[in-house]
Amino acid sequence: MAVQPVEASGTPAYVEKVAAMKKRLDSQIPDSLRLPPHIIDTAPLDVTGIPASSGLLTEKELAITELDATAVCEKIASGELTAVETVTAFGKRAIIAHQLVNCLTDIFLEEGITRAEELDEYYKREGKVVGPLHGLPVSIKDHVPLKGRWASAGFLATVELSKDNCLMTSILRDLGAVYYVKTNQPQSIMHLETNSMYGRTLNPWNTLLTPGGSSGGEGALIAMRGSCIGVGTDIGGSIRGPAANSGIYGMRPSSKTMPMKGYLEYQFGADGVMASTGPMCSSARDIDLFISNVLAAKPDLIDVSLVPLAWNIPTSFPKKLRVGIMEHDGVVLPHPPTLRALRVAKAKLTASGLVEVIDYKPFKHELGYDIIRELYFEDGGKVVRDLLKEGGEPILPLTEWVISPPYTKDHDATSLRALRKQRDDFKDDYSDYWNKSGCDVVLCPPFPGTANPHDTAKYWAYTAIWNILDYPGIVFPSGLKSKPLIDVLEARTSFLSQADIFNYELYNAETMAGAPISFQLVARRFNDCLLVAAQKLIESILKA
Amino acid sequence: MAVQPVEASGTPAYVEKVAAMKKRLDSQIPDSLRLPPHIIDTAPLDVTGIPASSGLLTEKELAITELDATAVCEKIASGELTAVETVTAFGKRAIIAHQLVNCLTDIFLEEGITRAEELDEYYKREGKVVGPLHGLPVSIKDHVPLKGRWASAGFLATVELSKDNCLMTSILRDLGAVYYVKTNQPQSIMHLETNSMYGRTLNPWNTLLTPGGSSGGEGALIAMRGSCIGVGTDIGGSIRGPAANSGIYGMRPSSKTMPMKGYLEYQFGADGVMASTGPMCSSARDIDLFISNVLAAKPDLIDVSLVPLAWNIPTSFPKKLRVGIMEHDGVVLPHPPTLRALRVAKAKLTASGLVEVIDYKPFKHELGYDIIRELYFEDGGKVVRDLLKEGGEPILPLTEWVISPPYTKDHDATSLRALRKQRDDFKDDYSDYWNKSGCDVVLCPPFPGTANPHDTAKYWAYTAIWNILDYPGIVFPSGLKSKPLIDVLEARTSFLSQADIFNYELYNAETMAGAPISFQLVARRFNDCLLVAAQKLIESILKA
Repeated sequence: MAVQPVEASGTPAYVEKVAAMKKRLDSQIPDSLRLPPHIIDTAPLDVTGIPASSGLLTEKELAITELDATAVCEKIASGELTAVETVTAFGKRAIIAHQLVNCLTDIFLEEGITRAEELDEYYKREGKVVGPLHGLPVSIKDHVPLKGRWASAGFLATVELSKDNCLMTSILRDLGAVYYVKTNQPQSIMHLETNSMYGRTLNPWNTLLTPGGSSGGEGALIAMRGSCIGVGTDIGGSIRGPAANSGIYGMRPSSKTMPMKGYLEYQFGADGVMASTGPMCSSARDIDLFISNVLAAKPDLIDVSLVPLAWNIPTSFPKKLRVGIMEHDGVVLPHPPTLRALRVAKAKLTASGLVEVIDYKPFKHELGYDIIRELYFEDGGKVVRDLLKEGGEPILPLTEWVISPPYTKDHDATSLRALRKQRDDFKDDYSDYWNKSGCDVVLCPPFPGTANPHDTAKYWAYTAIWNILDYPGIVFPSGLKSKPLIDVLEARTSFLSQADIFNYELYNAETMAGAPISFQLVARRFNDCLLVAAQKLIESILKA
Repeated sequence: MAVQPVEASGTPAYVEKVAAMKKRLDSQIPDSLRLPPHIIDTAPLDVTGIPASSGLLTEKELAITELDATAVCEKIASGELTAVETVTAFGKRAIIAHQLVNCLTDIFLEEGITRAEELDEYYKREGKVVGPLHGLPVSIKDHVPLKGRWASAGFLATVELSKDNCLMTSILRDLGAVYYVKTNQPQSIMHLETNSMYGRTLNPWNTLLTPGGSSGGEGALIAMRGSCIGVGTDIGGSIRGPAANSGIYGMRPSSKTMPMKGYLEYQFGADGVMASTGPMCSSARDIDLFISNVLAAKPDLIDVSLVPLAWNIPTSFPKKLRVGIMEHDGVVLPHPPTLRALRVAKAKLTASGLVEVIDYKPFKHELGYDIIRELYFEDGGKVVRDLLKEGGEPILPLTEWVISPPYTKDHDATSLRALRKQRDDFKDDYSDYWNKSGCDVVLCPPFPGTANPHDTAKYWAYTAIWNILDYPGIVFPSGLKSKPLIDVLEARTSFLSQADIFNYELYNAETMAGAPISFQLVARRFNDCLLVAAQKLIESILKA
């Protein structure tokens, strides 16, 4: 295995700057944590076992890095672990992970240890924690600013050292979080894969596959246990896609509930579709830990764009939870592993008698996907081409694809208004349809298959449909993995769409072996608390 | 006095259609309620006394029409009044009012009485009310659809008979409301006055002045006591301006909290600035009555664009309420009556010791107003010119003014994004400034003076600034009126802006005599419940 380079080349100035960035990143790997070449050269496709076998981590460090964020916080708060040993363990493992899957963009473990020392001293002196996340190592996606660290909005032209924390990293720090790494995202932050000027991030379970994107560095890092929790962003699947591909947990909250003030982006003012930010983590309870504490800090008092969401997770449901199950979206049939896991889930949920299972049929998902694709780049992608030009940066294939006609065009005010009306009508119609379905939540695929080979993630609709609707979603692992012997592709003679054919032909049971199979659970807009409670119930049934 | 005609003429087809509409409206006035010509011809400028002196209303009808909505609901619920006698009283008075100030666009009292009969029968049969608004007559602004009644989006080309109730009128009807009239709004629904194809609405307190707009029909009707509560809309002051001019109560809730699904408009998809809908009414408690009951119907389950706002009015404040007082916005100095009332209020609030009074200085209100004006018509007003052309309709001066350069232009996607970024930055900066001020609420003028002469309302910033910020606002009467002997304009040699000079020169103590002086109270976005509680406290201090 080898970390693959960006395919295209840029201007000499670009090549020089990128070389310097990569050199800087490489120099942040301490010699003591460098994997010997023979390990890298002979690594299996599944590299998740290498941190343990590398001999670079102690038994205790290995144990610490298997914890979820909630356990980490509990153990530090009880004095069972120190903040220093915790960030050291995750930091070391993150650096090992990076050498295998190229998931990081900035490494500053020493800074994290210094902060952890302060926290340990505080704990020793005061006999209490500074906040509910005291000592928790948190990894951060590249475009989310951390004071004094590198950040970018997905293009070389936007790379900068952050002068300040954004609101999110400021709140998390006040709650006790410790920062030590930032994670890779794709060019434009608009691929469901992760290939940037820092290079391509690989899927830890099978390096021939993508970890998804755009928060793919986070997903890969957490799957490698180089982090137990991180911050991602999602405007089309960028939290849920990589969470699914790497077999971890991730939630895209309803937009404008979690603070994004100060995040880097390159289309400020573009509000046709709203991004959201949320946790990528190791357990369902970590989602609650993260969101409840961030909201308790009242970010809406500082970020006036936010809707104040009351965070009260119901402990029971007034009547039996109605779980819609959507096997496919009517446009692209998922690959066999995904269908298998969903059918198993359906059988278990039905048999449990604890929820009411409903067959959920999709409503015009193709139309919704068409509309959101157009909303992403209302100027036809001019802003992207300008930024690439400014940096002398070559356009990557998935960037070219996402800004290309006919899915984007350069609008004027009149056509833009028409497009947004189309969006609003779609949301209204979908809402009526959902209400008639009677579902509280819908369980569905997060992608038309498990992790896919690099440069092929072109059908985002399984996640993006919920972005246009702004329905919150949680992705969580089914516990199952793709198995060539079981997951055999049936011969098909009829197809739902061109995208269906593309996806069908993409499937290769051998290539995709070992990929985690994940679920996506969605609820109506602002029903985030219901969603968290429903996911907990459903997961408990599936794991029973 | 006479109802003034629309100044400009249109195409022959337009003239013919408008004549038919006016004939239809006139024919809806029953002969038994026609005011004799001598009353109309010799009416004083203040026509509010005519319904009582006309002899067309009984003592009981006069008494009923002096009630606020809360009292009406209580008396019907207790059996003290019937729904039929209530809507009859308000309906008769509305028809009289209309002949004096031209406030209605559709009259259907018989329909209202029929519905009231059903409600009375239900009450008699079941011994209870159908809902908390059982029998309450509610007047409705023209562009808010009522099944089977006339509606328009402010242009002849948009006039239609509504096929269905919109969500708001559907909810209100389910709560027990009775409909009987619809009310006038200006061409384009974008004047702070009320002059339409139905003609010009006059201010009941002084018919030389405007009732404001765009919900000016509502304001004038309620001031005439032809309604105790009505539904208005506000994107730049269209609830608060007319409430202020007519000396009644009105609230613009934070946008996307109250349902507007199904309202007619002509820029669907335009989302640079959001309209809001709310009550115009006879008391502060009517605001609570209206909003609490509409929200209890859970409109967010049907209108997916809504934010679910918890409606819990605090009964006390954790610490002394901090009331900012803003005498002027740094751009246009209000006229003497408004300044007088504000200074009286400041003295009373300070003397009470019950609140903390803070001098609130404005933050870049001119910039905010410039941005919102540009956001109103992102196509430079093309949509307006097209609709006028379609209807053969002449453009009114205030329509021409509101769509004219330099305040509007025809944007492309790139410049639109820049404009919206400017908006977002302004909101962020303003929020920081507000937070630093330490104010919970700000008491300020709703307009740079009391009601103004017709066709002069060109400075909306006292209300529109809170629209761009989306800060909820309540307008309420000071109890004072403009008095020529007291409210003398001081000589000024320096001015804040061109608009300040225009406003200064507009003032005429004699002309504006008798106009009610009103206050506006605003709070931070989504602090609607705090706002309602604060208004109650402040009004109680001012009236003590």
